[in-house]
Amino acid sequence: MFEKVLIANRGEIAVRVLRACRELGVRTAVVYSAADADSAAVRLADEAVRIGPAPSRRSYLNAAAIVEAARQVGAQAVHPGYGFLSEDADFAEICAENGLTFIGPRPEVMAALGDKSSARVLMSRAGLPLPAGSVEPVPTVDVAVEVAEGIGYPVIVKAAAGGGGRGMTVVWSPADLPRAYAKTRATAQKVFGDDRVYVERYLTDARHVEVQVLCDAHGNGVHLGTRDCSVQRRHQKLIEEAPAPALSVATLDTIAETALRGALEAGFTGAGTLEFLVDAKERFHFLEINCRIQVEHPVTEMITGVDLVHEQLHIAAGTPLRLRQEEIRLHGVAVECRVNAEDPDRDFAPTPGRLERFVPPGGPFTRVDTHGYPGYVIGPHYDSLLAKVAVWAPDRELALNRLERALDEFDVAGTVVRSTIPFARRVLDDAEFRKGRHNTGLVDRLLTTDSPATTPHPPVTAASEPRPSTATDSPTSD
Amino acid sequence: MFEKVLIANRGEIAVRVLRACRELGVRTAVVYSAADADSAAVRLADEAVRIGPAPSRRSYLNAAAIVEAARQVGAQAVHPGYGFLSEDADFAEICAENGLTFIGPRPEVMAALGDKSSARVLMSRAGLPLPAGSVEPVPTVDVAVEVAEGIGYPVIVKAAAGGGGRGMTVVWSPADLPRAYAKTRATAQKVFGDDRVYVERYLTDARHVEVQVLCDAHGNGVHLGTRDCSVQRRHQKLIEEAPAPALSVATLDTIAETALRGALEAGFTGAGTLEFLVDAKERFHFLEINCRIQVEHPVTEMITGVDLVHEQLHIAAGTPLRLRQEEIRLHGVAVECRVNAEDPDRDFAPTPGRLERFVPPGGPFTRVDTHGYPGYVIGPHYDSLLAKVAVWAPDRELALNRLERALDEFDVAGTVVRSTIPFARRVLDDAEFRKGRHNTGLVDRLLTTDSPATTPHPPVTAASEPRPSTATDSPTSD
Repeated sequence: MFEKVLIANRGEIAVRVLRACRELGVRTAVVYSAADADSAAVRLADEAVRIGPAPSRRSYLNAAAIVEAARQVGAQAVHPGYGFLSEDADFAEICAENGLTFIGPRPEVMAALGDKSSARVLMSRAGLPLPAGSVEPVPTVDVAVEVAEGIGYPVIVKAAAGGGGRGMTVVWSPADLPRAYAKTRATAQKVFGDDRVYVERYLTDARHVEVQVLCDAHGNGVHLGTRDCSVQRRHQKLIEEAPAPALSVATLDTIAETALRGALEAGFTGAGTLEFLVDAKERFHFLEINCRIQVEHPVTEMITGVDLVHEQLHIAAGTPLRLRQEEIRLHGVAVECRVNAEDPDRDFAPTPGRLERFVPPGGPFTRVDTHGYPGYVIGPHYDSLLAKVAVWAPDRELALNRLERALDEFDVAGTVVRSTIPFARRVLDDAEFRKGRHNTGLVDRLLTTDSPATTPHPPVTAASEPRPSTATDSPTSD
Repeated sequence: MFEKVLIANRGEIAVRVLRACRELGVRTAVVYSAADADSAAVRLADEAVRIGPAPSRRSYLNAAAIVEAARQVGAQAVHPGYGFLSEDADFAEICAENGLTFIGPRPEVMAALGDKSSARVLMSRAGLPLPAGSVEPVPTVDVAVEVAEGIGYPVIVKAAAGGGGRGMTVVWSPADLPRAYAKTRATAQKVFGDDRVYVERYLTDARHVEVQVLCDAHGNGVHLGTRDCSVQRRHQKLIEEAPAPALSVATLDTIAETALRGALEAGFTGAGTLEFLVDAKERFHFLEINCRIQVEHPVTEMITGVDLVHEQLHIAAGTPLRLRQEEIRLHGVAVECRVNAEDPDRDFAPTPGRLERFVPPGGPFTRVDTHGYPGYVIGPHYDSLLAKVAVWAPDRELALNRLERALDEFDVAGTVVRSTIPFARRVLDDAEFRKGRHNTGLVDRLLTTDSPATTPHPPVTAASEPRPSTATDSPTSD
């Protein structure tokens, strides 16, 4: 095991990784921006290195500064958390060049899987079903029209290099396709520096189901079951649960086994997530693979007893996987709610400010991951994820009751700060959600119901890698 | 299920019970003393009824005021928590007379089991091995001498009506017996209004092992495995774990099955704990039975997934036990540390005062039960238990590492307030404890090592029902 790990992230995930290191006897150093000098991670870490000012490109995205910090503290490995440089193959390469272990897949694997288009090709070869549409990028609008005619509307045009819910346009009728095609290519070029796009069937009544995998450097891999993340607002997950509800065990097993096969065939190593859309007939379609720890990983930990960040560290240290598939048992149900410092009554606008009161919930089968503390000042620079409240119970109904209980006792307030708890409570009260019959249209239905004055709009797609709508700089959430 | 439950307690256990009620859709009312107007339970409950001034005999021990509060809010049942009236058969009787369900065993069963002497007789009849000594109370000093001669020294003289670690005297040589006998009788008369005492062999190298049971009103019962509570200071448990370590599975199973048989034969209903001493040869000896939820119940919940307070409520509502023995599986290891507002450097003197800072630990497999919050003022009236930090892991070593991590990140401080965390860390660092080879002498060994100037004194017994040494009024801990 490493003696010292540098944590190249901030917020709750920096604290999460720090906890894992400490439990394994690994010393910790965190990098931080000038805006994060009073952060929980800085307070808790053995060492902290200030690497630059608040803008992420000058701190959390500054590969050179991070590598220099690792050298300075004598770290042997870098844990990138999620967001920022966590899926940046160049950064992984730079780490390797500087004798640092990047805690994640090999750079070339990450590069291949990080590109949505090449990931689709790889996974299709591994036998994973894709949504109807083009496997390769669509070179011209005429080809796009042809593909769309073949699969039927609605379709979605997606940037091959996309991520974070950006570079996606839903098209409901043929007349709109040329404009959507041009617009998505322009956005993709601007945001990702790569204008390749592809066209897929857009599923309106699908669930977002994902599979957690762990693969070591010796060709071994396991899956840790499924998660449902269908409760999304603008591709931002709000409530996640494990295992995915209301699907047959046979379907869940098939998705999980298929996902693991795909990951292994791609040479993936570390902790990763394969995302799928599952339609009303339980047909599943591969969306993308995320090569890092996910925001919602706690729910998997709670139903398996496996500490995923421990496993990341062991795998990165070269240890053969300590888990065998037949030993992994899924117990009960875990549900997580993200608590964002946003005002649900003002279109989820971020509410930075000082936390005058901050008393997280506790008690039985309740887990809180947060970097918040009383007096902490939420700055305007980063995403608005403030805390994750996760609960476990033997069955889903009790888990939802428990989550309601936990959210109700969360005392979080500031003069300006608001939280998304009131909206999450509406989701938890929803009859379809309670029955596990919801899909990715749930949040829009609730928001539309809430504001009858608003023109109803088509549901957004169940995306892949949502980027926080409130991020002003670089996202840290997935 | 009940519609509304009155919680007749304070501190963390009032919050704990409140959480269970809320998760089952039961409305909650708490009673509180004038000193507890700002308590977490009052803040969280649906209703709160002030029942008297700070001294417990005028509030938390005031049966009439509690019954009146229940009537006032329309509660159907009373949850007594632990301590205070939780094992008071008269109070259970008064509840019944007023049409209230007392959440605990029937009054006559509680009366029989609450008396240590009659509990010993009952359990002996049920086949539970007692420590060598007198089964019935010892009427005269001559009989005491005779019993002691028969079993050999050291012996312990115990009040039949005792509890909370009071009314017990260890005797190392025959010359000291007459005085110890007289003193214990006098104490017993004074504290419990009952001067009956009995004499037992005193085991110096034993472990305190206890068994959690759940029994319904229909003759069904299950055990939920063992806990080890050998880390005690003056009969006050400091660190508890489940299952008991370093004993053979066969021994643990036998103790657990024997305990359940004893509880069922005594007609026990509800959640209860049978306490045993286990010697170096794994022979076990029944000490006493506690007819209520224990402070350390979370570790059992964490290895079984069972919410014990939910089960208490279901049993009290008349529901047949929802668990079957063969369905109860013990997973991994859970360890709990009590965090008391005491100064370990000043002989664990209580440190009441304002919590200037209070940031409990969180993250993976970490549970905190507390009534503390930033700005909370710990008063001088009650015991000093401030928080319980419990962790789970697949194995004991990782659980202990995790507990260390959690305790290290607990930021609790006031101008006056100190906590027992530094002492708990010494226990966790102890080589014998790490190996699971410790016994009830551990804390005294550490304290003696710590203060070489202090005259070494014989280890105290592994007691039964420790009463917090810091309680100035009535204890709420066990």
